[in-house]
Amino acid sequence: MATLGDLGVGAGINILSALIFFLVFAFLRLQPLNDRVYFPKWYFKGLRESPIPSGAFVRKFVNLDFRSYLRFLDWMPAALRMPEPELIDHAGLDSAVYLRIYLIGLKIFVPIAFLAWAVLVPVNYTNITLDLEKIKNVTSSDIDKLSISNIPDKSPRLFSHIVMAYVFTVWTCYVLLKEYEIVANMRLHFLATEERRPDQYTVLVRNVPPDSDESTSELVEHFFLVNHPDHYLTHQVVYNANSLAKLVKKKKKMLNWLVYYQNKLSRSKTATRPLRKTGFLGLWGKKVDAIEHYKTEIEKLTDQIAKEKERVAHDPKSIMPAAFVSFKTQWGAAVCAQTQQSRNPTIWLTEWAPEPRDVYWPNMAVPYVQLTVKRLIMGVAFFFLTFFFMIPIAIVQSFASLEGIEKAAPFLKPIVEAKFIKSVIAGFLPGIALKLFLIFLPTILMIMAKFEGYPSKSSLERRAASRYYLFSLVNVFLGSIITGTAFEQLESFIHQSATDIPKTIGVAIPMKATFFITYIMVDGWAGIAAEILMLKPLIIYHLKNSFLVKTDKDREEAMDPGSIGFNTGEPRIQLYVLLGLVYATVTPTLLPFIIIFFGLAYVVFRHQIINVYKQEYESAAAFWPDVHGRIITALIISQLLLFGLLSTKKAAQSTPFLIALPVLTLWFHRYCKGRFEPAFKTFPLQEAMMKDTLEQARDPNLNLKGYLQSAYIHPVFKECGDEEDNESLEKSETESVIVATKRQSRRNTPAPSRMTGGSSPSMRDVELAQP
Amino acid sequence: MATLGDLGVGAGINILSALIFFLVFAFLRLQPLNDRVYFPKWYFKGLRESPIPSGAFVRKFVNLDFRSYLRFLDWMPAALRMPEPELIDHAGLDSAVYLRIYLIGLKIFVPIAFLAWAVLVPVNYTNITLDLEKIKNVTSSDIDKLSISNIPDKSPRLFSHIVMAYVFTVWTCYVLLKEYEIVANMRLHFLATEERRPDQYTVLVRNVPPDSDESTSELVEHFFLVNHPDHYLTHQVVYNANSLAKLVKKKKKMLNWLVYYQNKLSRSKTATRPLRKTGFLGLWGKKVDAIEHYKTEIEKLTDQIAKEKERVAHDPKSIMPAAFVSFKTQWGAAVCAQTQQSRNPTIWLTEWAPEPRDVYWPNMAVPYVQLTVKRLIMGVAFFFLTFFFMIPIAIVQSFASLEGIEKAAPFLKPIVEAKFIKSVIAGFLPGIALKLFLIFLPTILMIMAKFEGYPSKSSLERRAASRYYLFSLVNVFLGSIITGTAFEQLESFIHQSATDIPKTIGVAIPMKATFFITYIMVDGWAGIAAEILMLKPLIIYHLKNSFLVKTDKDREEAMDPGSIGFNTGEPRIQLYVLLGLVYATVTPTLLPFIIIFFGLAYVVFRHQIINVYKQEYESAAAFWPDVHGRIITALIISQLLLFGLLSTKKAAQSTPFLIALPVLTLWFHRYCKGRFEPAFKTFPLQEAMMKDTLEQARDPNLNLKGYLQSAYIHPVFKECGDEEDNESLEKSETESVIVATKRQSRRNTPAPSRMTGGSSPSMRDVELAQP
Repeated sequence: MATLGDLGVGAGINILSALIFFLVFAFLRLQPLNDRVYFPKWYFKGLRESPIPSGAFVRKFVNLDFRSYLRFLDWMPAALRMPEPELIDHAGLDSAVYLRIYLIGLKIFVPIAFLAWAVLVPVNYTNITLDLEKIKNVTSSDIDKLSISNIPDKSPRLFSHIVMAYVFTVWTCYVLLKEYEIVANMRLHFLATEERRPDQYTVLVRNVPPDSDESTSELVEHFFLVNHPDHYLTHQVVYNANSLAKLVKKKKKMLNWLVYYQNKLSRSKTATRPLRKTGFLGLWGKKVDAIEHYKTEIEKLTDQIAKEKERVAHDPKSIMPAAFVSFKTQWGAAVCAQTQQSRNPTIWLTEWAPEPRDVYWPNMAVPYVQLTVKRLIMGVAFFFLTFFFMIPIAIVQSFASLEGIEKAAPFLKPIVEAKFIKSVIAGFLPGIALKLFLIFLPTILMIMAKFEGYPSKSSLERRAASRYYLFSLVNVFLGSIITGTAFEQLESFIHQSATDIPKTIGVAIPMKATFFITYIMVDGWAGIAAEILMLKPLIIYHLKNSFLVKTDKDREEAMDPGSIGFNTGEPRIQLYVLLGLVYATVTPTLLPFIIIFFGLAYVVFRHQIINVYKQEYESAAAFWPDVHGRIITALIISQLLLFGLLSTKKAAQSTPFLIALPVLTLWFHRYCKGRFEPAFKTFPLQEAMMKDTLEQARDPNLNLKGYLQSAYIHPVFKECGDEEDNESLEKSETESVIVATKRQSRRNTPAPSRMTGGSSPSMRDVELAQP
Repeated sequence: MATLGDLGVGAGINILSALIFFLVFAFLRLQPLNDRVYFPKWYFKGLRESPIPSGAFVRKFVNLDFRSYLRFLDWMPAALRMPEPELIDHAGLDSAVYLRIYLIGLKIFVPIAFLAWAVLVPVNYTNITLDLEKIKNVTSSDIDKLSISNIPDKSPRLFSHIVMAYVFTVWTCYVLLKEYEIVANMRLHFLATEERRPDQYTVLVRNVPPDSDESTSELVEHFFLVNHPDHYLTHQVVYNANSLAKLVKKKKKMLNWLVYYQNKLSRSKTATRPLRKTGFLGLWGKKVDAIEHYKTEIEKLTDQIAKEKERVAHDPKSIMPAAFVSFKTQWGAAVCAQTQQSRNPTIWLTEWAPEPRDVYWPNMAVPYVQLTVKRLIMGVAFFFLTFFFMIPIAIVQSFASLEGIEKAAPFLKPIVEAKFIKSVIAGFLPGIALKLFLIFLPTILMIMAKFEGYPSKSSLERRAASRYYLFSLVNVFLGSIITGTAFEQLESFIHQSATDIPKTIGVAIPMKATFFITYIMVDGWAGIAAEILMLKPLIIYHLKNSFLVKTDKDREEAMDPGSIGFNTGEPRIQLYVLLGLVYATVTPTLLPFIIIFFGLAYVVFRHQIINVYKQEYESAAAFWPDVHGRIITALIISQLLLFGLLSTKKAAQSTPFLIALPVLTLWFHRYCKGRFEPAFKTFPLQEAMMKDTLEQARDPNLNLKGYLQSAYIHPVFKECGDEEDNESLEKSETESVIVATKRQSRRNTPAPSRMTGGSSPSMRDVELAQP
């Protein structure tokens, strides 16, 4: 058990290390050499050029203006200065709302901490239970004196904890309600005021049924002409362009090399044309003229790409049963996205199209049955991952031990037996398997989410985040409280009664307070301070810059700004929220540490979002219901654990008061779900109509079809740069508008109603001309 | 423990009593006097007149054709003869699909019973465990010899039960899948082919927000003209006409009396005008001329009704914030019902309008917050009702005991002490409280559902049914297996571990087989046979006929055909399904009894539906997802209990096989939910468009507005019969179409887009003329 003094030392060390990180950061960011590492966002925005001061050569790399070093914490107020609306403009709504998660942490925990210190700490401290136990040689620390452990069994003082649990719950719910309201309004405002975006007019249609008479494109066209005659505008089928993407990538690399060698030639004084070996990585083989070599290679590839494109555009097999359907009005798109199209609810599935940047192309075509099977498999896999992940790691560890290596590869014995290597293997290898697993866990979870067939990057990240949260809930939170692997916990929980589980955990909670305080300081404080240093991108950038960067474009690409990383960042915050809520009534000493974490993280991430991160997509804060739900989960867990803890304190008369809490919290959650969640899933028709009217007034002659035509073309087609090819591809799609239906049976596509429609006369005339 | 012989006797008695019921029924239904009791449906349909054969007077009351008595079971094949499509035409889809629940019972259990008897019974019977135990003086019956109890612990034979559990699960799921598909298709076909109905074009809008500038009617009009400009047709606001309904009811009664006395006068030979006392129930007070009296009373009431109607039509307070909005096309209605209208998802809530007959008028106006609060309260109340209902009953019972009565009313002591009365009170009164509670339980659950604010009778019944199922699951099924009240069970379950609960129940299951077999015979066989006798309606009809019936209209109303009673009938079937699935692997002896129940019930209810029941509404089988979900629940319960039972048999190696079953079953449920449930909640646009096209072709000059205008008027307005009054009411609503908006701020109702619309020029001109 750590004393307050121990904790103070720990805090001192961590504050010092955080300060050192900040100092190093302050020094590094002022060096022009690192400018692209610490301010990449401004480069991407085109608002900043490579800093080449007119002065001496050395100034290009080192900042000699010593005055600037004096204000080394200047970035903090600077990061806080940008107002929220400007931040939304600058970095998008996702980022701005993501920052609000840290703010919500502050809003919840600052008042709770004050109250807890004002009420609970004195109540706890003025008991002498632990002093009495000390006489009996039970060790306890000063922190425990401030916690609920210091209150004797059956004490009426325990009621103050119950009252506080109510106050904390009410306050948390109030903050959550207000915040949900604000975020929902921000989202709707954002959707209403932002510029025209293709996804506002577009719906993603999945599971287009196969048809023997018509191609997918024709089928989509006919279906929507018939069923949305007044609103349908155009559509784009989704191509399976994975092989094409590979070729394009190869060509791009070749082009890069070509530019590199051409630069080299023009700069070199000897005018000898650069040579290159044809073998693997240019290491062996015949030497050839590099520029000629790449020119011919590129020509070959261009041919191949053209052929592949032709194939993709005309081979029906490369067309996936999905399409992006665009409408004339946002009203039409809103209607189509929210309604069921076909009698069979597993075909013609419609949903709002994600932003073009946000589309995850490989997942466009997963049939419904496969989808449900895949989710089942992944659910089971995740269960095993969470509870049994220690088994494969233990196996690897056994192999990675001395004996394991000697057994598997006896010839290595003399090397392994060397003293230095022996100690490395013994002390380092077993741990590395677990560490590697934890590093790759987010990637594993992301792959699982991809396998489940979510259509957009944002939904993939949300899915991975919720799994990561569950994993850390079981393995970090419960795992730290109760010793033993997750599976052992699971087994003991199954064999315990419903009331014993909270008891088992609840009893252990006060004892683990110091552990979690240390965890918060190391992982939270120092970890956040390290985040701002961006050590990995810094090193990689400089390495790339020295060895790989051949052209200006390469330098652009060597910048690795990263993004918020919702799938790892948010579950981490949630873990702190959970700790704070659980310990608020039990050991209020923990709260200030949490508050410092949230404050620090808010400033650091605000700085990062303004200067560094580059969001890959914009989901308009679609993640908020998840955030809200997880805070509610934390709240309920904290209530159940307090319930368990109190029942061991023999305060049985208090149980009815505590049972009501989770019921009320759950009800609050359901209320919020009904009240706010639709704003994150659907788009109200009233808003759509308002926006349509505005659009109409602002830009009555807009060629919307032209605008939407190529918005959802697979990025690989755009990357090719061969614009005329794209045109032909589009044409091959759009030509079908005036092609008559080849359908013989009219079972699936009834003729359009005579009353409605009139949007595409040529098409309808053809339809009506048929008997 | 009952032997097979005991059971045989029980079965004999029950079969005999069922046969007697059938014989009595066969006799009674042939009497012309009872014609209106046993064939009311044909009277309501106008296909049958009161049977007045030309022969003797006695023939009017007694059937003297003895040949007809010989074919006394003729009604059975007659009931089965009507093909399903005709049945749907005759009794509606709800009834036809309700019958399919019995059919599904047969489809599931007949093959299961064959398999179980072919495989499990021999496997069980060829063991000698129970014989061995018999030597040790443990009593067991022949039935137990056929059950899993006869298999020794750790026997490899238990694997046959696991395999059978898989086979039964797969078979049940297969039947469920097929049935869901059939019912979904029947529903869509029914919706597509039935005649034009107002609810196809109409959407119920609830939570219309209050507005200071406009009345509800104007607000609704403007909102939908703006947001659905191409499709909006008309609307009807909902009036709070409860007081009016009371007056109309009173007037109707008076009119009845008037006709009665007028008849009396014209038939009486003395020509003395009938007199009537003015006091309570005509028992005392001044004697007046009855006909004159009623005439003046009716006149007074007519005046009052006219005034009340005026008030309701013009007092804004009597307009509830809800409306029925009708659209020009079914497509427009389908779109409106499935989309979110306003930014605030708790106002302008839209859903498909229930059938006019199905509307539950008092629930039209419950605000969203109240709704969620009410559901919370009812959730908590239902929890207490289920687990603590014995407490108030025990209190009542203590009062109803001898001592209780003597204590509460000492003056009754001499009466109570009389021997006969004493025995009645001691033996009868305590039980009557419980019996009364169980009789009123469906009513209580119905009131609870009404309090929760469901807008249609069908949804009320569905809600009450699901609660009734839960109640009987806890109190009948678990209550019979484990002794003690539900609350005691709950308490012991809370203190047991997750694996112990199925064990505790699972072990008790084989021992209760004979009890449930008896239950099935008494409640199922004899109960069903009693259902066909319609004893209560028979008695009440004849009582009413003798004493109350004054006019022909009264006789019509004295018929009480009843309806299916989904809220009590379906949970009862589900209880049998649960018993069947639970005992299929444990005690296959039970299965034939269940099969007989399903077969008998199918025939009886088919007869009743064809000849008796009069459905109050038609929800187009909207209850099927509930039915499906409850069978899945039963399946999972049976799997968990088998799991518990096997774990006490120390067949630990089998557990992994059984864990997979509920996971797979749950997954199957989710698959079915996604695949079929939308067909029961939404109406696909493709279908709507098809139907619109057909309507258009069939009847291009239909005055849809006129057709829909008064479809959703509160029934009380229609009942008044004063048609011209209705007209004025309607006009006062519809006149607002050309009234300009009084709104000053245009925040909530933006001008309609210039592109769209054009449906109601007068309105739109006014709108556009405003700046």
